[in-house]
Amino acid sequence: MGKEFVKEITSMDVDFAQWYTDVVKKADLVDYSSVRGSMIIRPYGYALWENIKGELDDRIKETGHENVYMPLFIPESLLQKEKDHIEGFAPEVAWVTHGGDEELTERLCVRPTSEVLFGEHYKNIIHSYRDLPKLYNQWSNVVRWEKTTRPFLRTLEFLWQEGHTCHATDEEAHEETVKMLEVYADICENILAIPVVKGKKTEKEKFAGAKFTYTIESLMHDGKALQSGTSHHLGDGFAKAFGIQFTDKDGKQQYVQQTSWGFTTRIIGAMIMVHGDDRGLVIPPKAAPIQVMIVPVAQHKEGVLDYAYGLKRSLSNVARVDIDASDKKPGWKFNEYEMKGVPLRLEVGPKDIEKGQVVLARRDTGEKIFVSVEKLEETVEQLLEEIQTSLYKKALNHREENTYTAYNYNELVELFKEKTGFVKAMWCGDRACEDKIKEDTSATSRCMPFNEKAIGSKCVCCGEEAGHLVFWAKAY
Amino acid sequence: MGKEFVKEITSMDVDFAQWYTDVVKKADLVDYSSVRGSMIIRPYGYALWENIKGELDDRIKETGHENVYMPLFIPESLLQKEKDHIEGFAPEVAWVTHGGDEELTERLCVRPTSEVLFGEHYKNIIHSYRDLPKLYNQWSNVVRWEKTTRPFLRTLEFLWQEGHTCHATDEEAHEETVKMLEVYADICENILAIPVVKGKKTEKEKFAGAKFTYTIESLMHDGKALQSGTSHHLGDGFAKAFGIQFTDKDGKQQYVQQTSWGFTTRIIGAMIMVHGDDRGLVIPPKAAPIQVMIVPVAQHKEGVLDYAYGLKRSLSNVARVDIDASDKKPGWKFNEYEMKGVPLRLEVGPKDIEKGQVVLARRDTGEKIFVSVEKLEETVEQLLEEIQTSLYKKALNHREENTYTAYNYNELVELFKEKTGFVKAMWCGDRACEDKIKEDTSATSRCMPFNEKAIGSKCVCCGEEAGHLVFWAKAY
Repeated sequence: MGKEFVKEITSMDVDFAQWYTDVVKKADLVDYSSVRGSMIIRPYGYALWENIKGELDDRIKETGHENVYMPLFIPESLLQKEKDHIEGFAPEVAWVTHGGDEELTERLCVRPTSEVLFGEHYKNIIHSYRDLPKLYNQWSNVVRWEKTTRPFLRTLEFLWQEGHTCHATDEEAHEETVKMLEVYADICENILAIPVVKGKKTEKEKFAGAKFTYTIESLMHDGKALQSGTSHHLGDGFAKAFGIQFTDKDGKQQYVQQTSWGFTTRIIGAMIMVHGDDRGLVIPPKAAPIQVMIVPVAQHKEGVLDYAYGLKRSLSNVARVDIDASDKKPGWKFNEYEMKGVPLRLEVGPKDIEKGQVVLARRDTGEKIFVSVEKLEETVEQLLEEIQTSLYKKALNHREENTYTAYNYNELVELFKEKTGFVKAMWCGDRACEDKIKEDTSATSRCMPFNEKAIGSKCVCCGEEAGHLVFWAKAY
Repeated sequence: MGKEFVKEITSMDVDFAQWYTDVVKKADLVDYSSVRGSMIIRPYGYALWENIKGELDDRIKETGHENVYMPLFIPESLLQKEKDHIEGFAPEVAWVTHGGDEELTERLCVRPTSEVLFGEHYKNIIHSYRDLPKLYNQWSNVVRWEKTTRPFLRTLEFLWQEGHTCHATDEEAHEETVKMLEVYADICENILAIPVVKGKKTEKEKFAGAKFTYTIESLMHDGKALQSGTSHHLGDGFAKAFGIQFTDKDGKQQYVQQTSWGFTTRIIGAMIMVHGDDRGLVIPPKAAPIQVMIVPVAQHKEGVLDYAYGLKRSLSNVARVDIDASDKKPGWKFNEYEMKGVPLRLEVGPKDIEKGQVVLARRDTGEKIFVSVEKLEETVEQLLEEIQTSLYKKALNHREENTYTAYNYNELVELFKEKTGFVKAMWCGDRACEDKIKEDTSATSRCMPFNEKAIGSKCVCCGEEAGHLVFWAKAY
């Protein structure tokens, strides 16, 4: 029965893109609608997002930030205030031109991001050094007019948080940029079990209007990279465009230094592509909407359901637990919750009850463990931790196995012909080399990682003096 | 010093509308932006919304509902599928006509509400009676192209939740409609201390596309009513328009019965106008972002700040507590947190420390209470409860004092000339009478209350047989 069900999704090795599409649909994460490029996030997918959001929101508040809400619409003239920013975003915004029957005198864009709205607000509320820092965050939907879309990975509309902060000095803004990148890395590594490479984006890849952009990059099962969160030091570019000034302690007028940072529903796509397998989703326990799914066996027999509900009650002290007491067959249920990536399945039938035991099946390894009822709670806690750790290690191994080094251009080009993964190579800092590498390999510079040693002194492309180690990869 | 500060806001009795505008701004709830009719919800306002949202989300989940997320945009053709619905909403939607540089072949409206998106989705996922009920909820932003706007009360964009459910029978859908109205009433009465009148809307005032609408109506300080939450029985109107059918237990095809229900940021406007006074906001403890604000007195003296922080730590076990240790003067702080409606202020200075006591000042009554430190935690808990109850009672008294009865048309018209409040009067059910009353008094039918006895048998307007008792009022 298991095998029949498996056939319903395409194998990862046959067609990874199709596997992905099958999984997001069959695991009930999303559905499509008649709205091009947008997705319906279904209850199971949204519960997953709520868990991620809750963990991130806690950390955003613990680090002293406050949530606010800005308007959805941005008047065209406001969007145009910062030159680099509008150039970067204009091609991909949706424009509102009519309200009811009336044609608007000025077009409104649906926010692709909210730097300019925060800029205008900060100008109004910041006057003195006493008003700094301002540490704001917003949870919202944003729209980018993408041509080709895929659920979670690239959608016309997505959900995210965007942090926007103002500081008195460049140094403080820099600290904030690092701090929030660390928060994102923490969520990825400790909640989603996704190892990340932290680093700086090149000038070409940085955020439109930023001084520089820090990023975390992760590697998917197919060896392609995915940008998993970015944190931008905006310098005083927006401050000058919007006139955000404060009187410092010496009575002098200064421009504020700003940051912005964002983390999106895209990360769900990363989670799927890092941990999933041919039986469907694999969700790390800390992010899982359901950590243990109880499947009663021979549930029509007297006492089985009562017993199963009793287990649910006691387990709810240590885990997010649910029970499927529907009249579907156990085998069908096994497949269903494997597809949905529930970390542990608990099977209990009349014979188990007699023996005072239950069966726990691990989603990640398939292993079945017989546990006495007395030890159930502690075993579940322990197994959930083990699964969390084990998924992270497996993903880290996968990344390490798929990270290569290129010492010359030929190696670089050949590597990207034969392999898919990260390729480390030195770079001179010149845009022309970056463009050439992309043209010849389809790979882009993902980041210049922090704390990694140079592997040479010459640019892999032009052979000139090179100060930057870059992680290159084909990317989502 | 207090008096000087009070002058900064207009007195309620002088100009209630201006008082409202002053309060939302001076209490740092909102700010304006260059986006017409939209508001910036500032940290204090958003924290208030997060509390309300959290309480409501808990109840929505406890009653078996699941959160989902639908697209922001609705293609014009989809919006047009249900005739009454499009007629009701078309005049007030914002239209997206361009994506980047490209003109769209079909306009997209920015969702004013999401019945049609849920309708399309439900058609895809409901097939059998086993798929029912479907109990979905969405937290989102919506847009309605309002001409005249006021923060929270009527804005171009607002935040809300919208529940959308499908049921096998009319009776189940009816039960759901009632259940969610009760949840809204619970939030209003027990969290926001706002008494509500529960009832049914007239045909004229019901939701566009609904079979009928249930509502909760509250009375503001100025005697005007405010619709505070609505729950709609949609019947099978949308089901027929979208083809949402299921196979029942007898194998017959049936249309589902639907409901929808919404609760918005508007309720913050109600809270302000029910409890506020000439010193600013008054927030009921259960909704308050800060329940106790500690203001150290003579904080430069040795030990005062340490002591105050110690109190903060111990009080955080029983309340949401904060401390203002800035170098502003205590008098300034007193006014600030009165304006912000913090339920309790805790004053502590060197002399209090010596005596082992602190001062608690109630925002609602102005009363000052000396409390020994040993009894602080229990006193704070008790006072917060007292304030919550007392605010509700005060609001209920106010409503009762401003609820009148009209037995004939002359009385009705005169009452609305002299008074502002609810006026109970009998109504025949005829739209013409409803329209005439509005024309002559500016009052609208707020609801036909549940569980209220008829006060006569003739329509207050036409004198014909009347089966409906109606609460009439001028409304926001």
